[in-house]
Amino acid sequence: MDQHTLDRIRSNDHRALSRVITQIESGQPISDTFFKEVHTLSHDALRIGITGPPGAGKSTLADQLIQILLNDGKSVGVVAVDPTSPFTGGALLGDRVRMNHYLFNDNVFIRSMGSHGDLGGLARKAQDVGDLLAASGKDVIIFETVGVGQGEHDVAKAVDMTVVVLVPESGDEIQLMKAGLIEISDIFVVNKSDRDGAGRLAQSLKAILHTFTQKGKLEPPVFNTSADRKEGVADLYQGIIDHLALMKDEGVLKAKQLERYRNRIFNLIQDRLLRKFWTQEKLDQMELSIQNLELTNTSPHEVANSLLKGSHD
Amino acid sequence: MDQHTLDRIRSNDHRALSRVITQIESGQPISDTFFKEVHTLSHDALRIGITGPPGAGKSTLADQLIQILLNDGKSVGVVAVDPTSPFTGGALLGDRVRMNHYLFNDNVFIRSMGSHGDLGGLARKAQDVGDLLAASGKDVIIFETVGVGQGEHDVAKAVDMTVVVLVPESGDEIQLMKAGLIEISDIFVVNKSDRDGAGRLAQSLKAILHTFTQKGKLEPPVFNTSADRKEGVADLYQGIIDHLALMKDEGVLKAKQLERYRNRIFNLIQDRLLRKFWTQEKLDQMELSIQNLELTNTSPHEVANSLLKGSHD
Repeated sequence: MDQHTLDRIRSNDHRALSRVITQIESGQPISDTFFKEVHTLSHDALRIGITGPPGAGKSTLADQLIQILLNDGKSVGVVAVDPTSPFTGGALLGDRVRMNHYLFNDNVFIRSMGSHGDLGGLARKAQDVGDLLAASGKDVIIFETVGVGQGEHDVAKAVDMTVVVLVPESGDEIQLMKAGLIEISDIFVVNKSDRDGAGRLAQSLKAILHTFTQKGKLEPPVFNTSADRKEGVADLYQGIIDHLALMKDEGVLKAKQLERYRNRIFNLIQDRLLRKFWTQEKLDQMELSIQNLELTNTSPHEVANSLLKGSHD
Repeated sequence: MDQHTLDRIRSNDHRALSRVITQIESGQPISDTFFKEVHTLSHDALRIGITGPPGAGKSTLADQLIQILLNDGKSVGVVAVDPTSPFTGGALLGDRVRMNHYLFNDNVFIRSMGSHGDLGGLARKAQDVGDLLAASGKDVIIFETVGVGQGEHDVAKAVDMTVVVLVPESGDEIQLMKAGLIEISDIFVVNKSDRDGAGRLAQSLKAILHTFTQKGKLEPPVFNTSADRKEGVADLYQGIIDHLALMKDEGVLKAKQLERYRNRIFNLIQDRLLRKFWTQEKLDQMELSIQNLELTNTSPHEVANSLLKGSHD
């Protein structure tokens, strides 16, 4: 990556942003000098993750937060992370519509990123993209992820604050606990609160959060919204700002950022170890052993070992 | 792992099974000789993954499939995979109740496994546990996972057939596509079909599956059940058997098993590369660089590189 590109990023050139994000997404190697530069420029942006089960209305909520942020004079970068899907190619119609809506607005950059099944690499990529958007001068960066799973946990590692969006139908508390949502959430939103059961869910959430929030983690506040009716989103925005201040005061934010930094190093090293190990020769060797499966009865552990023994890295 | 343990596994000793699974779960190294032996014993068991969003009623459905299998003279191993949760410790009350229910039944082994945040390792661990249960003589092994995300994709790699359980509230098709459910599913179940919208969901699922199922993958059939009312589960069971036969005939099963084998090797090698790399010395080195974050402005990429340069593996 050249100095020219870096200058274009710094001057908020959205085309340059898109190009570099594509390189990050597709796993093309990018020089550390580039990221060192980007890193020095990318400190103050606030990173928010918005996640929750499919159908919770995350996109609608994100759209309204974008509007409020713009009205508040802030610039916004949005990364919508889709799990791999051969049909979407990482960007669905809805996302495209949103992107076009802001196409000529320098204060909003919306990008859809496919995980391409490589959810392991997602945390690192989201981190890099976050730094990049921050370097372009965006005040707030929103990561929007769908589903309830590792993807969310990865993105939670890339942000300062995770907003978990639920709907009355999202299931009872036990199921939310099972889905591991409580650990990653800094703020809970019960969206579509005009539906039955919204009050009950909010109440039992508060109860369970009060009981189970771990030491060293602030108890996540719970907000009720009806994003499609534009209800409660302004309160949510204020709540995000207040809770962020609290997280700062309590040192939670600092701890998160250190943990984030640590995770980044782990992810970077894993990526490079694997890239270094899997030479074409080793891939061929593995394919060969798989073709012979019919004949032999070798366990994968044996194949893995012979590949590891063969490596002099 | 000694020959004695192996004999106890082979003779379906559930206590021995539990102990070895705990070792796998906690990542304790187990000799390849052991897994080679286990591997040779573990070929014929059918591995079924049951997954879907929280609240879809997977456990209830699994329970009834267990009953049907038992009545059909089959022995069953069940692994319930929970995402990490400090509150559950990987096994929730519901699971414990189920386990106790079958405590003295040699034909049913139920085990709850936490992912301990290491969802990356989950695929490999689920594979190992599956082999282990197969070696103990179980005819059918059911992996039950909660959530919609990488955990499910990992488990899908460990099984012959993935059953995706939805409820009318699971969201529309676009959201299901976004959640990447269609790629991992071999069979769809619309559970709680007594609720509104079940018929519509089933219909639009069939439509979308018909359009989008990739080449080289059979179109997943869709079943309606009301597990809590014991409705439709027998049909589902028959459907599983029929679809499995079809998958065999079409060579889909074989392809899956090869892909599974390939993934196992990738996972095993990643595990070992990381374990080899992260010596205490390197961990200390990293912690040091993180403590100095305040002073320096080093990018994680630089730290990762210096750690990699320092390694002579």
